[in-house]
Amino acid sequence: MARKSLKFGALIHGVGGNVSAWRHPEVPVDASVSFPFYRKQALKAEEGKFDLVFIADGLYINEKSIPHFLNRFEPITILSALAAVTSKIGLVGTLSTSYSEPFTVSRQFASLDHISGGRAGWNVVTSPLEGSALNYGKTEHPSHDERYRIAEEYLEVAKGLWDSWEDDAFVRDKESGVFFDPAKMHRLNHKGRYFSVQGPLNIARSKQGQPVIFQAGSSESGKTLAAKEADAVFTGGESLEETKAFYRDVKRRAVQFGRSEDDIVILPGINPIVGRTEEEAERKYQEIASLVSIENALNYLGRFFEHFDFSRFPLDEPFPDIGDLGSNSFRSGTDKIKRNAKEQGLTLRQVALQAATPRGEFIGTPEQIADRIQRWYEEGAADGFIIHSNLPSGLSDFVDLVVPILQERGIYRKEYESDTLRGNLGLPIPANRYSLAKVKS
Amino acid sequence: MARKSLKFGALIHGVGGNVSAWRHPEVPVDASVSFPFYRKQALKAEEGKFDLVFIADGLYINEKSIPHFLNRFEPITILSALAAVTSKIGLVGTLSTSYSEPFTVSRQFASLDHISGGRAGWNVVTSPLEGSALNYGKTEHPSHDERYRIAEEYLEVAKGLWDSWEDDAFVRDKESGVFFDPAKMHRLNHKGRYFSVQGPLNIARSKQGQPVIFQAGSSESGKTLAAKEADAVFTGGESLEETKAFYRDVKRRAVQFGRSEDDIVILPGINPIVGRTEEEAERKYQEIASLVSIENALNYLGRFFEHFDFSRFPLDEPFPDIGDLGSNSFRSGTDKIKRNAKEQGLTLRQVALQAATPRGEFIGTPEQIADRIQRWYEEGAADGFIIHSNLPSGLSDFVDLVVPILQERGIYRKEYESDTLRGNLGLPIPANRYSLAKVKS
Repeated sequence: MARKSLKFGALIHGVGGNVSAWRHPEVPVDASVSFPFYRKQALKAEEGKFDLVFIADGLYINEKSIPHFLNRFEPITILSALAAVTSKIGLVGTLSTSYSEPFTVSRQFASLDHISGGRAGWNVVTSPLEGSALNYGKTEHPSHDERYRIAEEYLEVAKGLWDSWEDDAFVRDKESGVFFDPAKMHRLNHKGRYFSVQGPLNIARSKQGQPVIFQAGSSESGKTLAAKEADAVFTGGESLEETKAFYRDVKRRAVQFGRSEDDIVILPGINPIVGRTEEEAERKYQEIASLVSIENALNYLGRFFEHFDFSRFPLDEPFPDIGDLGSNSFRSGTDKIKRNAKEQGLTLRQVALQAATPRGEFIGTPEQIADRIQRWYEEGAADGFIIHSNLPSGLSDFVDLVVPILQERGIYRKEYESDTLRGNLGLPIPANRYSLAKVKS
Repeated sequence: MARKSLKFGALIHGVGGNVSAWRHPEVPVDASVSFPFYRKQALKAEEGKFDLVFIADGLYINEKSIPHFLNRFEPITILSALAAVTSKIGLVGTLSTSYSEPFTVSRQFASLDHISGGRAGWNVVTSPLEGSALNYGKTEHPSHDERYRIAEEYLEVAKGLWDSWEDDAFVRDKESGVFFDPAKMHRLNHKGRYFSVQGPLNIARSKQGQPVIFQAGSSESGKTLAAKEADAVFTGGESLEETKAFYRDVKRRAVQFGRSEDDIVILPGINPIVGRTEEEAERKYQEIASLVSIENALNYLGRFFEHFDFSRFPLDEPFPDIGDLGSNSFRSGTDKIKRNAKEQGLTLRQVALQAATPRGEFIGTPEQIADRIQRWYEEGAADGFIIHSNLPSGLSDFVDLVVPILQERGIYRKEYESDTLRGNLGLPIPANRYSLAKVKS
């Protein structure tokens, strides 16, 4: 079987992709609550035949949160609005399994799936920020491992609810007055450790069967959950070797769970900076990086470590020993920061600036970026990429300048293959579990 | 002060407004999950300069649920999608305070409010259906009174979260790098009987300050909650006298809570059936009523009484004595059904058919319906009406034939006065509690 062509997603995130990008002259300062801004970005991605737009989320802010997080759209609402003004592109958003109810969340994604004609995707997260508990009447944020156990059971429930109605359950015969076949309506009757949900869900399956499940955690628990339950993985894209190892690891785990390697699509996040020349690209990067003050960079770094205050340490001495801090929030990310600092002997200043203004490998001319993308794709580090640019022009430059090269090379679509997200990602439509049981018996 | 002009809302409800309307030739059988259908209805209402569209909801279905409830859009998602394709009309949806989290719900309505440019409204309900508990891991549905206590605290939390940011909190000065003024960000720190929520909410106030609060319960607890907290009330519209009494009662209660009568808008629901002649209107009604079988009517009636099975009683004998049943679900509705049956000596068949195909007073020629509307409005039974038609043509007939008469008479707008829902309803923009405290001190 021929390899699937490249996939692309666009992370849309209001006032810039780093802690200070909002200060850049081209960024509208109210973009994170501007529907016209989101619509424009989504339509640009659709013009570039992207598979999906991606909306990230969080459930806790404080004075040190980065500007984009303070005042932004909630994913279900903005994705539903974008569904009405787009026609082919997938609509993927983050929603936490630690602070929500599976009946409501399954319904909202199923409803988005119907509104969009089969283009919904859910990025399942467990909420890294400990403060989230305070907004949800909880005395304690569940531990990292428990959050993943909750997520796993939650997904079982959601997938079960999505199968409440077999695809031919709605007879709708005006003559006889039969609206549905009760034998094709199913109660889940789930009673588990964390959830008890009877069902049925009050909405049918969509054209793509079920919303596409994304997973973005890269810890051990995250990778296992992804390999078992997810259709797609949004991961970091720092270096080719590291990403290749991650790619092989997740595909291998998926096979261990009895799935095919093709059943899960791996999409590293990259931040391309395109210039007509290498110098122009470098200048663009420096322009963005120069907006970040060291105070902002320390704040940004601190957020990953439960809003730890790094400003009390000397900037130009080795990154301080902070023990286990961060392991209950963004575990894979904080482990990596600590490991890199130690291995490369970085100072606190270096670590903070690297975190706040990562340079990445995808900077240069359109040809150079296309080469790099092709290499990652062909060497097995990625099935595609999520583009998360610091600036709005990062996406439009990519669509206008890099996409045509990839199309020319025959590794990226010139037209959508399908009008569902599953169809474009090349993922199978999951059979309804009850119909399947009848076929098998 | 001159009286506000008439207000109108359109309840959009997929496959027809009664238990069997889906069988009518003009109803598309998949309308309750058809975005094009909802878009068309919303645009028709906007053409008629309606204040709002209204999306109802429920959290429990079973084999006896009416067709429209089995498979339908979730309100937050469909309202957000409609926000993207409309520009002036308000977007109001039902969401239960008994099975949700205030942080999430406040955010979703605030986000809808931003997406729509200040057109969001929330119909606060407490979930009448006892089975809802089974879909939310609860062993018991809270009692009627407790649900209202929960709702009251919930609304305090939601309104508090909506004020998390003062209107000038976001400075966004690119030069200095100051994005916001921390003194204008506020934590709610709510610790109550049912909820503990710290805040701040991660979204600003919208153009209309806060989403408009609707309330639709007509029990004692419902009326008190409405009078204290709601901006608008969606009530039944069975008879002029009954509705006038309700109107006076709620306005009086609002004044007792220190509010002005103008701070709360009362909108009875009506189902106009328009004919070129009286005979045509009557024929249209009979056509709809004839689709309802007695079995369907009994099922429909049963839903109000915790899905009670009425089919075991003789059809043509007096309505059976079922004791207290129904008082923990749709209390005001079930009380009224029992009272009417007794007072009018109705049989079970009569009660069931009346419930499933209510005829109402708004049937006749456009002039007759306009007269009736004007009378209700001028005699103080209504500030406006929610139109909930059995058929899609009910709305378009109303907009095309009745609206021009009301406009001609000078009691209904020819153009929107505002582009926010509060603006059109003539409601004040609530001041931010923290800014207000500074002004007062």
